[in-house]
Amino acid sequence: MSTRLEPATRHHDEKLQHILKTSAKIFAEKGFHHTSVRDISRATKMSLSGLYYYFTTKEELLYLIQERCFVTLLQHWEQMAAPHLDVRARIRAFAENHLGFFLHNMPEMKVMAHEDESLTGEFDDKILVLKRRYVKVIMDLLGELQKQDGGKGIDLRLATFSLFGMMNWIYTWYQPKRDLPFPQLIEQMVRIYFFGLLKAGSVEEGWFTENSTTNSKDAFSLWQNIP
Amino acid sequence: MSTRLEPATRHHDEKLQHILKTSAKIFAEKGFHHTSVRDISRATKMSLSGLYYYFTTKEELLYLIQERCFVTLLQHWEQMAAPHLDVRARIRAFAENHLGFFLHNMPEMKVMAHEDESLTGEFDDKILVLKRRYVKVIMDLLGELQKQDGGKGIDLRLATFSLFGMMNWIYTWYQPKRDLPFPQLIEQMVRIYFFGLLKAGSVEEGWFTENSTTNSKDAFSLWQNIP
Repeated sequence: MSTRLEPATRHHDEKLQHILKTSAKIFAEKGFHHTSVRDISRATKMSLSGLYYYFTTKEELLYLIQERCFVTLLQHWEQMAAPHLDVRARIRAFAENHLGFFLHNMPEMKVMAHEDESLTGEFDDKILVLKRRYVKVIMDLLGELQKQDGGKGIDLRLATFSLFGMMNWIYTWYQPKRDLPFPQLIEQMVRIYFFGLLKAGSVEEGWFTENSTTNSKDAFSLWQNIP
Repeated sequence: MSTRLEPATRHHDEKLQHILKTSAKIFAEKGFHHTSVRDISRATKMSLSGLYYYFTTKEELLYLIQERCFVTLLQHWEQMAAPHLDVRARIRAFAENHLGFFLHNMPEMKVMAHEDESLTGEFDDKILVLKRRYVKVIMDLLGELQKQDGGKGIDLRLATFSLFGMMNWIYTWYQPKRDLPFPQLIEQMVRIYFFGLLKAGSVEEGWFTENSTTNSKDAFSLWQNIP
């Protein structure tokens, strides 16, 4: 992702990623308000002054975590969006992108859900802009689907947030050793959403994968490479 | 609910309900750790000593809120469960019960989602027992459905928590003035879950309501009467 950056900048970026990743984990465990910059200093093995080079306040740190998530999701989406694909395949790709990212970044998912209201002022405004942009992507796709061939009569906000609800809730229950591996989890969740639980198991295997934009394994390893 | 209790007990129960309801609202707004018993005293207009008659610690108060939710949900479910009904109708009734309750008790929904880990020791153990009992109800129903006629090949935990995810996420987006009224919201959400977004709008109107255990309006006003 950062291979074209100058060495100094790349180092800065890698260090920042490390800070964001570690902080997200601590925020997810202890809650934003219960975490001190000292906790982050201990976990990252960086001095306070070293940390304050990357952010000015704990709130800015939370902002940077959320911003990084939305920007990564949007960038990756734009790279894979493939407008020539049929709208169902694009909705599936969106879900794959979202789940693929958060299954590998579950602390971030919890932080986004729980600390939604911990940002104030400009930080809050900026995240809201990103969030609206992100939600609009899937809402537009679902709207397009409704015009074409499916989902007519279903409220668009309900359709949108039902999908997010199914996906985002995973941080509360998913256990890697107990539950389905990621590709099957995504496959089955998308099937329930499109075809319903009653038919989800009997839809032909190839239905989606033929049109799918990316090979799931590639998509997953890509997310895994984000430190 | 408390009409058969002695006057003094009823008074105690109503007062406790008032405390739980008010505290849930404050916990939802400020977070459990950021709320003091003094905040609750101000909001309930009760003295600290008056409050401590009903609970010993703030953690016990959080426990009482969560316990009340699960017990109410389970009791109401047992009253309406109607084992003679077909399994789909029972799953629908479960979703109606869950959504009907939380749409009227959204602060509680947020508190249950966000403060899941704020309970410790015995409080935590007791809530876990209730939660497992509650999850088992729907998991058993979904397992039964799979044996009969639908959902085969879909992981049971995935099917269960996808439903909870869709439903529980509403506290993050639902706006009474902007979104569908409760009965339509529940109807459409259950349709997406059973039949999928692609078919949800075209399933015949009467499909569910013929088998439905309760008239939605009655169910809703019942929940509304809980102070």
